[in-house]
Amino acid sequence: MTAGTDGRGGPAGTTGSGDGDRIVALDVLDIRFPTSRELDGSDAMNPDPDYSAAYVVLRTSNGPEGYGLAFTIGRGNDVQAAAIRSLAHHVVGRPVPETAADLAALSAELVGDSQLRWLGPEKGVAHMALGAVVNAAWDLAARRAGLPLWRFLSGMTPEEIVGLVDFRYLSDALTPDEALDILRRAEPGRAERAAALVRDGYPAYTTSPGWLGYTDDKLAGLARQALADGFDMIKLKVGGSLDDDVRRLGLAREVVGPDVRIAVDANQRWDVGTAIAWMRELAPFDPYWIEEPTSPDDVLAHAAIARAVSPIRVATGEHVQNRVVFKQLLQAGAVDVVQLDACRVGGVNENVAILLLAAKFGVPVCPHAGGVGLCELVRHLAMVDFVAVSGTTEGRVIEWVDHLHEHFTDPAVVRGGRYVAPAEPGFSARLRDETLTDYRYPDGPVWTGLEER
Amino acid sequence: MTAGTDGRGGPAGTTGSGDGDRIVALDVLDIRFPTSRELDGSDAMNPDPDYSAAYVVLRTSNGPEGYGLAFTIGRGNDVQAAAIRSLAHHVVGRPVPETAADLAALSAELVGDSQLRWLGPEKGVAHMALGAVVNAAWDLAARRAGLPLWRFLSGMTPEEIVGLVDFRYLSDALTPDEALDILRRAEPGRAERAAALVRDGYPAYTTSPGWLGYTDDKLAGLARQALADGFDMIKLKVGGSLDDDVRRLGLAREVVGPDVRIAVDANQRWDVGTAIAWMRELAPFDPYWIEEPTSPDDVLAHAAIARAVSPIRVATGEHVQNRVVFKQLLQAGAVDVVQLDACRVGGVNENVAILLLAAKFGVPVCPHAGGVGLCELVRHLAMVDFVAVSGTTEGRVIEWVDHLHEHFTDPAVVRGGRYVAPAEPGFSARLRDETLTDYRYPDGPVWTGLEER
Repeated sequence: MTAGTDGRGGPAGTTGSGDGDRIVALDVLDIRFPTSRELDGSDAMNPDPDYSAAYVVLRTSNGPEGYGLAFTIGRGNDVQAAAIRSLAHHVVGRPVPETAADLAALSAELVGDSQLRWLGPEKGVAHMALGAVVNAAWDLAARRAGLPLWRFLSGMTPEEIVGLVDFRYLSDALTPDEALDILRRAEPGRAERAAALVRDGYPAYTTSPGWLGYTDDKLAGLARQALADGFDMIKLKVGGSLDDDVRRLGLAREVVGPDVRIAVDANQRWDVGTAIAWMRELAPFDPYWIEEPTSPDDVLAHAAIARAVSPIRVATGEHVQNRVVFKQLLQAGAVDVVQLDACRVGGVNENVAILLLAAKFGVPVCPHAGGVGLCELVRHLAMVDFVAVSGTTEGRVIEWVDHLHEHFTDPAVVRGGRYVAPAEPGFSARLRDETLTDYRYPDGPVWTGLEER
Repeated sequence: MTAGTDGRGGPAGTTGSGDGDRIVALDVLDIRFPTSRELDGSDAMNPDPDYSAAYVVLRTSNGPEGYGLAFTIGRGNDVQAAAIRSLAHHVVGRPVPETAADLAALSAELVGDSQLRWLGPEKGVAHMALGAVVNAAWDLAARRAGLPLWRFLSGMTPEEIVGLVDFRYLSDALTPDEALDILRRAEPGRAERAAALVRDGYPAYTTSPGWLGYTDDKLAGLARQALADGFDMIKLKVGGSLDDDVRRLGLAREVVGPDVRIAVDANQRWDVGTAIAWMRELAPFDPYWIEEPTSPDDVLAHAAIARAVSPIRVATGEHVQNRVVFKQLLQAGAVDVVQLDACRVGGVNENVAILLLAAKFGVPVCPHAGGVGLCELVRHLAMVDFVAVSGTTEGRVIEWVDHLHEHFTDPAVVRGGRYVAPAEPGFSARLRDETLTDYRYPDGPVWTGLEER
């Protein structure tokens, strides 16, 4: 089936590039990094991840291409890749998207595929797949515009930005008019805040010291290094053993002193009662937030935990499947920190909805990063939040994990504990050509070499 | 990787068949039926479904095989099939499961695959995939035991049944001890209730009159037929147009009279405000329940709608992704009817958890059926509920949609408005060999024939 012929999003000819350029192919690659050998990324639920990307390239008839990805942790990356391929008929043959309206139409068509919707709806493999394609389309449009995504998106009018959002299931918490008000209030200071980002960057915190597989010495050394690198916040993984957590958090607090924030992250390990009891034991070390205390699906449990552990903040988001669950977490007072993820939900469009919801409820957005390419992508979204939505960095900070950046053509850079504002056109998801060759699973030389050893 | 060697569920040699039979292959087929041509299954969100199954066969070294499926509505069935294939290493080489403990171990190993868990967790394509495999393992075990699944499962001890359940994330609503109490209370009358099922069957309602694509004449004719067939409850799809719904529901009420229950089903079409306003207009026709008024992810929205539309019941479940969301729907008083689905969640084990949760909260389970094979499978689960869990059919009824049964070797049968208790060994998911040949997508003769026309 050719794109645009199945009744949603309008015929392919009605939107897009004035110069007639079209998307001619959607290529998907299964790229995996053997991270489980170093225990980078090890936590209470994920003991041996091989950080991976189902990587998508939108090939065009002329000019720049678009790049996107879904992040996984190994097995199943091929399933994720297959899910992305299943969306090809929606984009191949389509004019290259250029405007907010083009990008809104593409997102609506993908979300509205009623047969594929059954596989979610709007969650899991199918939703991450469409998120990867939507993000690749945004990357493409921003490249064509010659702007980094954060500038491209935050340069749109409030009306255009509202038009990106699917308000289905949101109207009991956020209406289009309320969203427009939020965006209009932030409009006057946009240029000034963009200039501040270029000058000062955006606050970051580092998770590098805290992986569960690390020794105490490695933890202490990396915490010291974090201070030396200019961070004023670090994060530790918890939830494996209470004794270990008490010892490790005590050690970290000793190393960094009382003024540096230490967040802890349980990676969904606990039930409600355990979460509350465990955090009571960790409270003397003044944790800044508890992240993913329980199932990401459990709004009511997060609300109960938030009430019990206050003033410790509750944070979640990297596994929150869509805007409907974020909406409820906010309505129920279940989160104090919204950790949106660039690749879990339906791409830029749904993340704009999540930024607007968080702004409506006055809850800070502190994006989840790490993985493969998440630091590269989420910095754009946090910067859009600052420039065009919330208008502030107060209580806001982007996660930083210092690995795998060398594989990207426009890698995230953190200096003095702050993300540098990206300047290159696009959404920064492009992997280097050598990486695509070396790490292709299962036939790239990195993987065939592992098998031979 | 060989099954049982990756650290969860114990080594493959510790459980299973005494006679040494093993699972030697996991085969997956992409089977699709071109139902969109007749508008069977058309509703407000799914205008043109091609009912499909990602069909799994567990081949064994000796004796009966096991059959399971994930139901989809067309595009993406290949992705669903790929997700099932990705689980092969957990089952191939494993002893044929025979006991409750074997089936608990298999489910735990599949749910516990930390790399695949990232793709959910416990939702969407990845979760339906493991549900299909778990169900196939139950089918296999029941066939080996020579019992229909409902007898096989409801013959287990309360302790064995509790052992099937993953209580992670449930303990704030249901503990293992509470589950044991529920099962023990139902133990005395088991034999008598099983005999009653064989004698009288289990109450059914029919959705056949109500698909949105049908004309008024077809609706009225089928509603009349439903009465003649002995049903005392029918269901209509709503949510496309309010005027149409008022007319159609009025017509149906006129045909069936005041004493037959008419449920309505919006298939997730509405936001909260629309749902409440729409149901106010339909209230004069005395709808029995409103099904899927909004997003299946939206616990708080269902709760708000339930408060506003009472005494009309709120029902949902066919798209509820897992036990954690069912738990919250029950905790929040958001549902009056739990519509579990055999193929949406993690198979029999998770559905046992959902039956126990519903029993704990005193809410009736009325399974979702239709699709491909759902009638065949859910009748077993409803019968387990009656025999071993809730001990009653009060307020309980299984959906009946009269299509595609001819493709199954042990088809669901409804007589006089009641499901006949299945007597053949297994879980009834086996498709006929001719169907596997004729409807295989895209190369079976039914599909190549369509292309040629």
